[in-house]
Parts: sequence; structure tokens; C-alpha cells
Amino acid sequence: MIIVLKPHATREVATELLDHIESCGLKPLYMPGEERVVLGALGDERKLSKLQLESHPLVESVKPILAPYKLVSRELHAENSIVNIGQVPVGGEGFVVIAGPCAIESRDQLFQTAQAAKGAGAACMRGGAFKPRTSPYSFQGLGLEGLKLLAEVSAELRLPAVTEVVEVADIEAVETYAAAFQVGARNMQNFRLLRELGQCKKPVVLKRGMAATIEDWLLAAEYVLAQGNPNVVLCERGIKTFETATRYTLDLNAIPLIKQRTHLPVIVDPSHGTGIRELVAPMAKAAIACGADGIIVETHHKPAEALSDGKQSLTPQQFSEMMGELKRFVEAAGRTVVTSEQ
Amino acid sequence: MIIVLKPHATREVATELLDHIESCGLKPLYMPGEERVVLGALGDERKLSKLQLESHPLVESVKPILAPYKLVSRELHAENSIVNIGQVPVGGEGFVVIAGPCAIESRDQLFQTAQAAKGAGAACMRGGAFKPRTSPYSFQGLGLEGLKLLAEVSAELRLPAVTEVVEVADIEAVETYAAAFQVGARNMQNFRLLRELGQCKKPVVLKRGMAATIEDWLLAAEYVLAQGNPNVVLCERGIKTFETATRYTLDLNAIPLIKQRTHLPVIVDPSHGTGIRELVAPMAKAAIACGADGIIVETHHKPAEALSDGKQSLTPQQFSEMMGELKRFVEAAGRTVVTSEQ
Amino acid sequence: MIIVLKPHATREVATELLDHIESCGLKPLYMPGEERVVLGALGDERKLSKLQLESHPLVESVKPILAPYKLVSRELHAENSIVNIGQVPVGGEGFVVIAGPCAIESRDQLFQTAQAAKGAGAACMRGGAFKPRTSPYSFQGLGLEGLKLLAEVSAELRLPAVTEVVEVADIEAVETYAAAFQVGARNMQNFRLLRELGQCKKPVVLKRGMAATIEDWLLAAEYVLAQGNPNVVLCERGIKTFETATRYTLDLNAIPLIKQRTHLPVIVDPSHGTGIRELVAPMAKAAIACGADGIIVETHHKPAEALSDGKQSLTPQQFSEMMGELKRFVEAAGRTVVTSEQ
Amino acid sequence: MIIVLKPHATREVATELLDHIESCGLKPLYMPGEERVVLGALGDERKLSKLQLESHPLVESVKPILAPYKLVSRELHAENSIVNIGQVPVGGEGFVVIAGPCAIESRDQLFQTAQAAKGAGAACMRGGAFKPRTSPYSFQGLGLEGLKLLAEVSAELRLPAVTEVVEVADIEAVETYAAAFQVGARNMQNFRLLRELGQCKKPVVLKRGMAATIEDWLLAAEYVLAQGNPNVVLCERGIKTFETATRYTLDLNAIPLIKQRTHLPVIVDPSHGTGIRELVAPMAKAAIACGADGIIVETHHKPAEALSDGKQSLTPQQFSEMMGELKRFVEAAGRTVVTSEQ
Repeated sequence: MIIVLKPHATREVATELLDHIESCGLKPLYMPGEERVVLGALGDERKLSKLQLESHPLVESVKPILAPYKLVSRELHAENSIVNIGQVPVGGEGFVVIAGPCAIESRDQLFQTAQAAKGAGAACMRGGAFKPRTSPYSFQGLGLEGLKLLAEVSAELRLPAVTEVVEVADIEAVETYAAAFQVGARNMQNFRLLRELGQCKKPVVLKRGMAATIEDWLLAAEYVLAQGNPNVVLCERGIKTFETATRYTLDLNAIPLIKQRTHLPVIVDPSHGTGIRELVAPMAKAAIACGADGIIVETHHKPAEALSDGKQSLTPQQFSEMMGELKRFVEAAGRTVVTSEQ
Repeated sequence: MIIVLKPHATREVATELLDHIESCGLKPLYMPGEERVVLGALGDERKLSKLQLESHPLVESVKPILAPYKLVSRELHAENSIVNIGQVPVGGEGFVVIAGPCAIESRDQLFQTAQAAKGAGAACMRGGAFKPRTSPYSFQGLGLEGLKLLAEVSAELRLPAVTEVVEVADIEAVETYAAAFQVGARNMQNFRLLRELGQCKKPVVLKRGMAATIEDWLLAAEYVLAQGNPNVVLCERGIKTFETATRYTLDLNAIPLIKQRTHLPVIVDPSHGTGIRELVAPMAKAAIACGADGIIVETHHKPAEALSDGKQSLTPQQFSEMMGELKRFVEAAGRTVVTSEQ
Repeated sequence: MIIVLKPHATREVATELLDHIESCGLKPLYMPGEERVVLGALGDERKLSKLQLESHPLVESVKPILAPYKLVSRELHAENSIVNIGQVPVGGEGFVVIAGPCAIESRDQLFQTAQAAKGAGAACMRGGAFKPRTSPYSFQGLGLEGLKLLAEVSAELRLPAVTEVVEVADIEAVETYAAAFQVGARNMQNFRLLRELGQCKKPVVLKRGMAATIEDWLLAAEYVLAQGNPNVVLCERGIKTFETATRYTLDLNAIPLIKQRTHLPVIVDPSHGTGIRELVAPMAKAAIACGADGIIVETHHKPAEALSDGKQSLTPQQFSEMMGELKRFVEAAGRTVVTSEQ
Repeated sequence: MIIVLKPHATREVATELLDHIESCGLKPLYMPGEERVVLGALGDERKLSKLQLESHPLVESVKPILAPYKLVSRELHAENSIVNIGQVPVGGEGFVVIAGPCAIESRDQLFQTAQAAKGAGAACMRGGAFKPRTSPYSFQGLGLEGLKLLAEVSAELRLPAVTEVVEVADIEAVETYAAAFQVGARNMQNFRLLRELGQCKKPVVLKRGMAATIEDWLLAAEYVLAQGNPNVVLCERGIKTFETATRYTLDLNAIPLIKQRTHLPVIVDPSHGTGIRELVAPMAKAAIACGADGIIVETHHKPAEALSDGKQSLTPQQFSEMMGELKRFVEAAGRTVVTSEQ
């Protein structure tokens, strides 16, 4: 860690800070420059966090050298991690497609949509029972009843199911009925939820918050791993920018970048990331091209009647066409599309 | 609501949509233009949400005329609402200053900091027992023990206390020990939490999410009001932008704008909004100048030893100086600083 | 165009505005709702711009139905446009790779870099003689001398050259020495420059401004076409967002979206869009996957010695490896890599 | 400057880099840590820019200690600079109000608007002859004829005039007819224009680019000062963010922050910064409260007929009312409103 002092900081202040650094078990360094005095602290910087050096009135800035996360870091764990959703491995050589409706509306809707998804090559299904909606007047999901429908359809089609959990109190029910938890963008920094999920065994699909930097996102994953659950799949789903022609700006830069930094699998959600049906297939292809391990896509057997997100949902036919095109890009990447029957 | 059809939409599609609009009890309108057919739906647009017109494959765009929120809207409720935190009215002629530490660290720290705040003119105190922290390795708050310290100090100093609630399961404890709930930026769209708070009686200080538009923010408040709790105080605390010289970009434009749209009181958090101690006083003065009803400020009796956010906390002396300057601006605005003893 | 009036607007105001609309040759429409009066204006909305309806004190908002651009629009011109840079067609079935150094530093540097680019499959070369640099203390380019080196190397290698023009006064020189103008992100709204380029014949590679919406970008292209030069190639190069782990956020959503709206070719700059050498190849592959017509990439025979942007430049070997991988994705897209010898 | 090496960088690489640092006249420092080797370079870091250390394949990151600007820095020049626009001092104890129309439309419009502005207390006038407009179909300004009208009205009312310059070729004409140049947000990084203005004597009002960080902005000012013209007035006018309820997000945090870093005067443009007439007065008051040296405001004798930006222009009466309120806040700040007659 590099600590830059303010111009008027005295030698005494520097000495005092260097003593603090040494007392934390790090190697202190004194670097007097012409315009500023700079201090260094070599070793495990995380030990310094309790010193709160940034709060010191004579410290101008603190520049960390090491990343603030550890367990998710590729430096600690060089090999790619593989996370199994049901029997489906995410993060290996295969490319995983998760598909299904935004919200579970009825058994018929869920079954028809998931069956079509499976038929076209999806390895897992999705469907929300608890829906976080911007307006209190929008459909909020079927709740526990929805979870039960999800479990039924998932079993019948032998398609592992991913579903969102929005509250600590629901964790047990979700773990009972689904193969994986999804933490939505609005909950990426619901740290209480993350810690509790860290004590579960089932995998967590952790969506990136719409204002989260890559570092924030990795630290959110670190919350889960720090509690003992290593099964985290990161999911890029678009960030909030000034561009309003699309619902969000899907940040595909993040895919190869985060692959450098972490061993965790990373998938892409082109449905939320664009908000526009016609953009889902092109961005799904771009996701595989830049190194994603899978995609999660919204489909609906009748999008025009969907209770949420119909504008970005693919019809079964559109999904099937996309899968056809996608396969060529998956092959170009030297990978294969994972099927639900391993 | 205005519905723009795609260029190739036929007359039949238009007729079908107009029938749907009429069946919802709205007045349908047909406007054939040269390049596009446009439909109108006059009446309470919220009834149309179940039609999911945006999902229709031949609908290009849907442009609402009315705001999607209702209870928080000034159109429904023209007068300013006054929300009482303990005995302290927020939203009336007075200007309210809430001060105290970011996190409750000990009885001594809390008492000294709050006593100094009161001495300098704060009407309420703040202090976090449950701290949402970006890193799992940072101090996470004292929890229930912190709440109890808060209640003690609050009673002793007769200073109503605001504290953050991060989880439905903690609502009861927070309501027991504090005068008002704070919902942090990361939880602004934790809709389950909002709904539960809507069933409480104590006021909710609702911070703006760092990626939330003004409309998102008002809809979050609508969640609380829709459940029966009218006591919401909005709090601007900075949004995420490309500028990194400050921690966030305090969006003061939002203050006069939201005052046009809602009757709810609005306060400003210049500590989180800037992240820099030296910017707190100037931005506090700007807040009153542009129409805010109060500020919430982080203070600490020894910022250099604070366990969180020390960099942006004022010392008792800095806070006292700020209050001196602030009073002149509060007077210029034709208002007065509210004291804790009403 | 839809005009929403403020709640207190009288019938007289509405009548007056409807008369104005009619006087502009549009069909006026009166739609009195319960909470708001809405007016419509059907026809070529651009005629209304001189009415400045947004400025009217009783107009709440104005919602256009039609796009504000015309010549660049796919509605007017359904087929893809092909723009020739030298002999190299951009926007057809082929995929075009433009490569070369950020700045022209010397004949040797330019020649070696361009020769390697050509050898690995680039169809055009790039190199800047006029460099807009954030700091006045950075290398600002060789100017006219650089242009002459560019012309020499371009002729010798038979590789059409693209180079940036930053000022009206330089247009003539650039047109003499290069095959295409590049307008940089910082000049995307230098409207004087755009108008002058609209009177040239050579193509214009128009980079997206770092704060430009897709609509702003298309309107900038409209400036060029409106003056008579139809040869515009759009270039996505990343927008400014809160994410700082990459230099910019490459907005690939923009590629399929803009392809819906315009007939102009679109290429991607993964070098500036990421700012990180290791991300260039993955994002180049993502560009072809989502529908781009080409890429423009920074290469340097010795990046560690580059006078600008070395951090994002590929070595000849890295570029060659990228081209190998890229070809597989170009084939997956059913296209071919264009060569310089047509 | 701190240079962090990649994990696999050898001791030889470090030695080679340390030699380079020493050869530039800086003091090199070697700091081997457990996970990374860190190098330091103490002295005038700007000398290192030619080393392009960031481009080195084994350098992970480069962290500057010192600001990259020099002449604009408060460290070099501790006292506030005062810049005179005509006889009006900007940056001293006084608070300067510049008012007038967005675009010069006619002698009558300009005269009436400016006369009203002066009557209500403006010290300078504004008015654009060259208008950068997003759409080629919008009014582009009267050009030279507009400049002549500006000079006439300015002389008649003895009100120094500020007007935008968009192109090097127009500098001479603008310098002849106006008291100060304005560089618009879209030209903040038109470095050629900045350099030429650096060779003029008249002051430059430099608006912040809508995607410019504070550092970018100060470096743009450095371009002007580096050429010999010390008369730069910075102008905050809103940045581009995800919030669309206002035209831009006026970043008032920037005012106290930039005052710490630079000696140059800073003013605020609440008209463009909000885009909404009703927000102009509140944000003008906030500007003085947080330390701005003045404001530049759009006024129009008949906003509903304005050819540009009518929606954000104040009527003479609104401007006069704003000035009345503003004076109370200027006094609260211990300053006085500057009049045109010094």
C-alpha cells in the first residue's frame, strides 16, 4: 500500500504512521519526494484496513497495491473453477444456456416455455417466483406457489432450475425447490443475504449490480466464499449508463477482464442487458466470442402476454433460431454447448 | 398513454389494440400518420400495465403521459408533507440537521459524538448498528448491541435517532430502539424491506440508490406509502457517475426537481455524496440553497480513529463551524434551523 | 409528435397550439384526458422544430414519434450502404480489419508496423499525424510530416490509410495524403468540421463521442450526409461510464441496435474501447459476433516504446494470433475477412 | 510515481526500469513485497511520461503521486487568480452574473434581453453567434452578423460580452467583437482551439466537457495557460449521467473540489446544467453557497419564441426575481454581486 501525505505533513506524522504500519506486521517504507512524502507498506495490505489511514487528516490518498479480495482471486487459485448447477457444469469447456420465463405465471406457461427451451438445447431453466419490480403496481410473482411449480417442471423435464432469492427468510424454500440461487442486480450488495447464502451448499448465480464496479462485484462474491460456499457463478447483466436506447449497457469488456482476475465462471444475461428482443441473439453470440461460460436468456411461449419483461423475451422459435446460430460461434471458440443430460 | 406502432403494423393490429384499451376502461384514440400509426389511451394509464403493450411484436414504443407513481405525487397531495422524527418535524419551515457517526463503535464514542452534535445545533442523531460494507473484511457494525447503545444515548441526550435497517428480520428491533428507519442506497430497491416498512408507523429515511433515477426513487417511496406508512423522508446521497475525484456525484438538481413532483420532505447527505471532509460544509450550504429540508452529516469525535468513513466525517469543531455558516444560508432561505427541543 | 400540456393549461392555449401545428402543414389532434390535455401533430415532425414547442410555459413535455435524423435512416434507405476506403469495401459481406500505430512516430516505425499488419491480414492501415492528447505535455503528433510518411507507406504497401483530422484547416492536407478521414471521439460534435467533411468525397470514419447517445451519433453522421458526402463509416469506441477497470466501456449493444436504425457500416475499435492489450482480441471477436462490419486496432512493432497508447497496442505477433482466431468467428458469421488486394 | 510490476516480473526487469527512472533525473526506489514488486520514482513525474512505463508488458499499473497539471495548480500559485472580463473581475470577492440569450436572433431580441439583464443586476452579457447544435436541421446561429450585433449592444449597454468560439478560423473575429471567448462543452478537448486561444490576450470561459473528469478539465485549462494566456475562467455546466429527468447533472461537488486544486475562478451554468427553467434559480443559489465565483444564465425577452434552448431560458421577470433571491445568498457567503459599472 502506498500512502501519499499532504504537503504540510511533518516528519513526526510520517514516523507515527510508519510505526503504525510496522505494528500491523507490514514492512514500512519512507520515501521523501520534492513535493510530497510518500510512505509504503509492504505485505498483506488487508491487515492495514483497521488503521483507517484514509481518515487521517494529513493523508492525501491511499493507493492499494493488491486487490482487496482474496478467495475469488485467480492469484490464489489459478485454475478455472467449475460450478455444478444440478448436473450441469458451468465454467469448464462447455458453454451453458439457461432459458425460461422472467416470471413463473402458471404451470402451463412454465412447462411449455421450459419444454421448448430444452428442445432447442438449453441445459438449465430459469423462472422467477419472487419478482423485484420497480413499481408496486406491477406483478410481484407467485411466491412459494411459483417455487413449487418450478420444482415440478424442473423434475419432469430433468432441467435444473435457477431462481431468484430476494430475502434471507426465503433461502430455505428456494434451496428446497431449485438447483441454484440467483441473486439479482438490486441485491448484489445485500450483504446479509450473501452471507447467509455463503452457508448454503447450492450454487449462487450472482448478478452484477447496475452500479457495481468489477471490484465491487468480486467483493460481493468474496462475501459468499468467505462463509464457505465456493459455488458462485458471476453473471454480467448490464450497467446503468447515460445511453437510454437500450435498457442497460451490457458490459462485455467485463468478461475477459474478470477472467484474468478470478477463477469463478462468468455468464451473460443478454435479455436484461439490452431489454430488446432483437438484440438478444447478437449479444449472446458476442458473449461466447469474448469468453463467457454461458448465457441466461428470457424466453416465453407467448411474449405478448408475459406479465413481465415480454419486450425482451424470445419466442420458442426465436430461441431455437438463436441456438442454431450460437452453436457455430461456440465451435469457433473451441467449445461445445452443454446439454441437460450429462 | 401513447402507443407507436411499427411501420408494418396493419390496420387489424391497431383495431385489436384499440379494443384492448377500451376493455380496460380507457378512451382509445386512432392517429394514422404518414410514417407511423399512433394510438392513444386516455384515462388512468396504470390500468394498462396488465396489457403489457410493450411486449407486443408490432408495438415500437410506449410513451406514458402520466407518472407511474400516485400516492407520493404532488398532484394528488399539493401541500408539503411534514414527517416527524421523534418530535422533530421534517418538511416544514424548519431546516433539520441530523448528525452522528457512520457506525456505532462504543458507548463513549457515540455519546461524545452525539453530545457535540447536539451542542452545535443538530436536531437528531444518526449512527449505524448494521453496516453494509463493500468488503467482507471491513467492520460490519455492532448489531443489536449497537442499537441498544443508540437507544440509551438518544434518550439521555433527548435526540431522536435515525439508524439503518438492512433486513426484514431486524425491523422490529430497529423500531424498538430508534426514532426512524434509514434505508440505505444499496437497499432502495429491496422491495420486500420497503413493503414491510410500509406496515410500520415510524418514519423511513429513504436514501436514493446510486443508480436510481428520480422516478425509480419515487416508486420506491410509493412502495412504502402503498402499504399505509405515509412517513417517508427522501434523502439524496449521490449517484454513481464517471467522476472519481469525489466518491459519488451529489445530484442537487434532484432537490428542486423532486420538490415539484412530490409532497414528501427531501434531505441531503453531503458526507456520502462527496466522500471528502472538506466538501461537506460547502455542499450542506448548497443543499439549503436549492431547497432541501435538512441534511444528514457524519461526525466523529476522533475521525482518524473511526472504523468506517472517517475520511468524510467532521470533527466536533468542524461540525460546529459548519453550523455557524449554515445558519446564515438557512436565514437567507427564509427558514430556521430546527432544534431538538421543540 | 405528442405534446403534453401542463395541468393548468386552458382550452385557449390548446387551440392556439393546434393552430400553430396546422400552420406548419401538420395534422393537429386534440386529446383531452382526465388529468392532462394531450395534443398530437401528425406528419413530418421536423417542420415543427421552428415552433419551439418545448419552450412554451404551458407545455409539460414533447414526445417525438419519428427519429430526428433522415438521410442516415434505414427507413429511407433499406439496403446496407457500402463505403469504399480506397478499394476496400466496408459494409458488405466482408469483414474489414484496419490496423496500425496510434501515432506515426517515424518512417521505420510506421512501415514495420503496417507491413506486419498487412502480412497478418489487415485490409487498411491507420496512423495518427495529429494527436488530440489530454495533457499538453504529451506527444502531439508529427503533423504534416506524419501525413507524408503515411502516404508513402500506404502507397508502398498498397494499404489504404485512415488518419484523424482535427481541424477544418487540415482537411485538404488529409484528403491529399490519406484514403479516409477519421473524426475522433472528442470531435464527434465538432459540427463545423463535420459540415466541411460533408463537402469532401473521401469517406469519413466517425467515432462515437464518449458521452454521445446513439441518437447524437446518428445526428452527427447526418451532418456529413446532409452536405452531400454519403460515405460515412460509424465506429464504436467505448463510452464513459463509472467503471474504471477498463479505459472506456465498449458498448457492443450499440452495434445490432444501430444496424436496425441506419444503413451505414459500423466498425468497432477494441483498442480504445478497452485500453488494455489483453482485451483487444476477445472484444474484436465479440464485435464480429454481434454484427460489426470491421474493426480498427492499434498495433505497434514495439509497444513498450510507443509514444502513445502503448498499453493497448498489440505486437505484430499478438495481432497475427488475433487474426487467426478472428477468422473462425468471421466464418461463423457467414462472412469473410477482406484483404487489401481486391 | 509508483510502478507496480506484474507477479512474474524478474529482478532484471526491475533493475532495467530503475535505471530508466534514474536516467530521467528521478530518484529510483525498489520495494520488493510478498506478492508484487513495487518501484518508486521520486521527483518531477512529468519527466517520466516519455518512458511510457504503462506500455511495458511487465508493468501492471502506474500510480502517479503528483497531479499532471502544473500552471493551473494551486500548489504553484496559492492565491486566487482574478480574471477580468472587460472591466468585470471574476474570482475576487465579488459574485458575477452573466446573462443573455442562448443565441443571438436579432438586434431587437438581443438588446431587449440584455437591457433587462443589466437592469436586474447582470455584470456581463452572453449571446451565441456560432451555435453547435446536435441536429443539422436546427438553427445554427447568425455567424459574423451576430458577432457585430453583439458588439453594438455590448457597447451601447456598457456590458462586456462573452460569446462562443467553435473554430480556430473564427478566433480573430470573436476577439474583435467580444470581451471574452467561451469554449463550449463539446470543444473542451478541441486542443488545437485551446492552443490558439492560449496565444490570445482576452479571457477564455472554459466549459467542462460533458464526459470530462475534473482532471481532464484542468488539463484543458493547462493547454491555454501553457501557451501564455493566464485568463481562464472555468465553468461547470453539467455532466452526462444516467439521470434523464434533467438535461445534464450539474456537478456542484466539482466547485469546492476544484477550488482546492486550482487558483482559477470557477462559475456555474445552471441553465444548461439542468435544462429546466424552474431549476435555474435554485441551482444558482446553490452555486454561490458552495463557493462559485459567478453564474452564466440564459435569459430571453420571449422564451416561448426562442430559436434555441427556450425551455431553460428565464423571462426578464423571472431573472429579476432570481437576482433578488440570489443577493441574500451572496451576502450569506460574505460576498457582493458585482455590477457592470466598476
